Amino acid sequence: MTLKQQAENGVVTDLMAAAAAHEGLDPQWLRRQVAAGKVVIPCNNTRHLKHPRAVGQGTRTKVNANIGASSYRSDLDQELEKLAAAVAHGSDAVMDLSLGPDQGRIRRAIRQHSAVMMGTVPIYQTMQELAATHREISDMTIDDFLATVQQQAEEGVDFMTIHSGVTRRTMATLQRHARQLGVVSRGGAFMVAWLRQTGAESPLYAHFDEILDILATYDVTLSLGDGLRPGTTVDAGDGAQTDELLVMAELTQRAWCKGVQVIIEGPGHVPLDQVALQMQQQKRLCQEAPFYVLGPLVTDMAAGYDHIAGAIGGAVAAMHGANFLCYVTPAEHLRLPTKADVIQGVVAARIAAHAADLAKGLAPALERERAMARARRSLDWERQFQLALYPDQARAYRTESEIQNEAVCTMCGEYCAIKQLHEAL
Amino acid sequence: MTLKQQAENGVVTDLMAAAAAHEGLDPQWLRRQVAAGKVVIPCNNTRHLKHPRAVGQGTRTKVNANIGASSYRSDLDQELEKLAAAVAHGSDAVMDLSLGPDQGRIRRAIRQHSAVMMGTVPIYQTMQELAATHREISDMTIDDFLATVQQQAEEGVDFMTIHSGVTRRTMATLQRHARQLGVVSRGGAFMVAWLRQTGAESPLYAHFDEILDILATYDVTLSLGDGLRPGTTVDAGDGAQTDELLVMAELTQRAWCKGVQVIIEGPGHVPLDQVALQMQQQKRLCQEAPFYVLGPLVTDMAAGYDHIAGAIGGAVAAMHGANFLCYVTPAEHLRLPTKADVIQGVVAARIAAHAADLAKGLAPALERERAMARARRSLDWERQFQLALYPDQARAYRTESEIQNEAVCTMCGEYCAIKQLHEAL
Repeated sequence: MTLKQQAENGVVTDLMAAAAAHEGLDPQWLRRQVAAGKVVIPCNNTRHLKHPRAVGQGTRTKVNANIGASSYRSDLDQELEKLAAAVAHGSDAVMDLSLGPDQGRIRRAIRQHSAVMMGTVPIYQTMQELAATHREISDMTIDDFLATVQQQAEEGVDFMTIHSGVTRRTMATLQRHARQLGVVSRGGAFMVAWLRQTGAESPLYAHFDEILDILATYDVTLSLGDGLRPGTTVDAGDGAQTDELLVMAELTQRAWCKGVQVIIEGPGHVPLDQVALQMQQQKRLCQEAPFYVLGPLVTDMAAGYDHIAGAIGGAVAAMHGANFLCYVTPAEHLRLPTKADVIQGVVAARIAAHAADLAKGLAPALERERAMARARRSLDWERQFQLALYPDQARAYRTESEIQNEAVCTMCGEYCAIKQLHEAL
Repeated sequence: MTLKQQAENGVVTDLMAAAAAHEGLDPQWLRRQVAAGKVVIPCNNTRHLKHPRAVGQGTRTKVNANIGASSYRSDLDQELEKLAAAVAHGSDAVMDLSLGPDQGRIRRAIRQHSAVMMGTVPIYQTMQELAATHREISDMTIDDFLATVQQQAEEGVDFMTIHSGVTRRTMATLQRHARQLGVVSRGGAFMVAWLRQTGAESPLYAHFDEILDILATYDVTLSLGDGLRPGTTVDAGDGAQTDELLVMAELTQRAWCKGVQVIIEGPGHVPLDQVALQMQQQKRLCQEAPFYVLGPLVTDMAAGYDHIAGAIGGAVAAMHGANFLCYVTPAEHLRLPTKADVIQGVVAARIAAHAADLAKGLAPALERERAMARARRSLDWERQFQLALYPDQARAYRTESEIQNEAVCTMCGEYCAIKQLHEAL
């Protein structure tokens, strides 16, 4: 039985207990959420996951870091360093998005070293194998794809992004509604090319049940990829995006019937005035399945600083229903991220996630803010550092303060408001 | 006559025309907004301001950078470098918050070199003069304060933060409503100490009309300082904050009667779920006077990365009514910012401001996003750099991409979705 089926049968498994304990949740409550599909705990059943995490309504907002090499930059050690840095800075998950001939080796190494849940996009491997055997995109068969899913499930991948929502119907909608920028999802673009070249229905949709059977066997969580997500704020919330969401809602029901846990992937590029609306729409249409967003970026003008545009969108998205934030690094759209970029991306997403949890009134977030207020009132710098999301960074700035041994800092000095009032009382 | 009085009399001054031209606004519309107090154009009438800017409803969201030395770090050249960096990165205003004996020299130098409007907090000079003459806080008289305002107005300061809302009434409210963290505004803490020590009414409130007379003479814009703003998200939106806002609403009416332009200053520390509410409340109570917020920070846990917490709060605040964002640097709460910190602070605030302008549907923001979508569709990297808020940073990342001469980047390489679709068509 899958985790979801056990939850439906009233069983609190060790995994549910561990995920609940991690954030002080009632295990029975968590079980009910898992049974209802509102929360997932991605974990491949062939392996022991050191840090299992619950993703969904009522749980702490989680953060994912995308790592992995590309055809042009492929260095296993660097990817393992990125993995370690992401987890050290608070990432709850990593996805290996490696492209190129080395992808299998890198994926297995990340899987082996990761203490947090790990996701992949299996179509990348299928694409690579087609290229290696000099076949066209249109030559891809469902057997090619199922073989990839089977292999990666056996390897122990915890969640997989699969673009089954790119279908003849949603492609027709895409063509009917003019867009500034067509398709920016790599997997989505591949499937659109396949559909155009063959004139047939997507095998990822037509053979969806066969995919589910493999996922259920290994209890891999399905992350329904939004292959038609808009690639610019100008296209946000358009017909193709909405139609794909409707198809994903249908696929969610089918996956749940087979006991497969489901995450819905979302954009992407969303102007700030649409963020709340899009989150509410996803929750309504997809029966409150966990929502996993990429950013979202609230402007396309922040190249070089996209982690900040993503933090703005992510915080507002998570306040309004998103449960899982995929980070965006400052290198997004420009080049493969380095370890330093990964750190900046995770930090920005974690701040956004915490801000949203505070806004939603999650008890641990509230209590931590209260403790920080007490530490600041008493000018207890060491306690402030301990409570901060990133103590090392805060301490580094403070250390550069020339009067670090006094209660105050170089900004206000003797005019520190808190110090003034302590003395005035 | 002040600018506001000229606007009320139907005159479109050169300043109004220049501010309108800068962002493609109708000068007559802008005049009506200035007359109604919904928009201000801060500019001391003794000087020519190179880049006058309109702040308020219907205009582009503006950004301010706080610079200035402290008693512990005072280096004029560094402050002028910060000024240049702030303006180069898109700051629409600077405030000199210098403390310590050098403050006069630094303020005058910044005033002399600044091409953008410049603000100060005159009470800092008064505080310094008290300290220099070994007088107590309670020794401050209205004449001390008026002399400072007069001197700085003569020097050409364009807007001044004055904490006239810290009164016996609002202090009583502060005491009635228990707070985690009392007062974190330096000027506010000074005034609270004065009120406690003297038992008298605040001279900044009792003699408000005399302050206004000086401001009107030099056409200095009044920025009503929120001396009782909460200093932690835990205290956000409490009784003292709300009561001070009510007093500021009263003072706004009085200033407008004397032709003085008014900005209302706001927090500070606001959890994300309260941001929209607080913006709407200010707009309603203060007759839509421009709202100038510090951040706001949506969590207190981001020390070392407060520019990110501030960008999240600032974007949402500006979408819901804030018109002027005071940046927060990564060094906030820890030490005086360096030039590098200033740049990071301005960048984060500018991204937030643009995201809000896009969300509000401001035409220039929308058009720029559309142009970026076109540049991305055609994989025109040079055009993308030109359109980005920070071309140099975007170009630097791209330059590190090993395949920079191709249409794609090292992230996706040959799997670039846009390239794939170009080829599939």
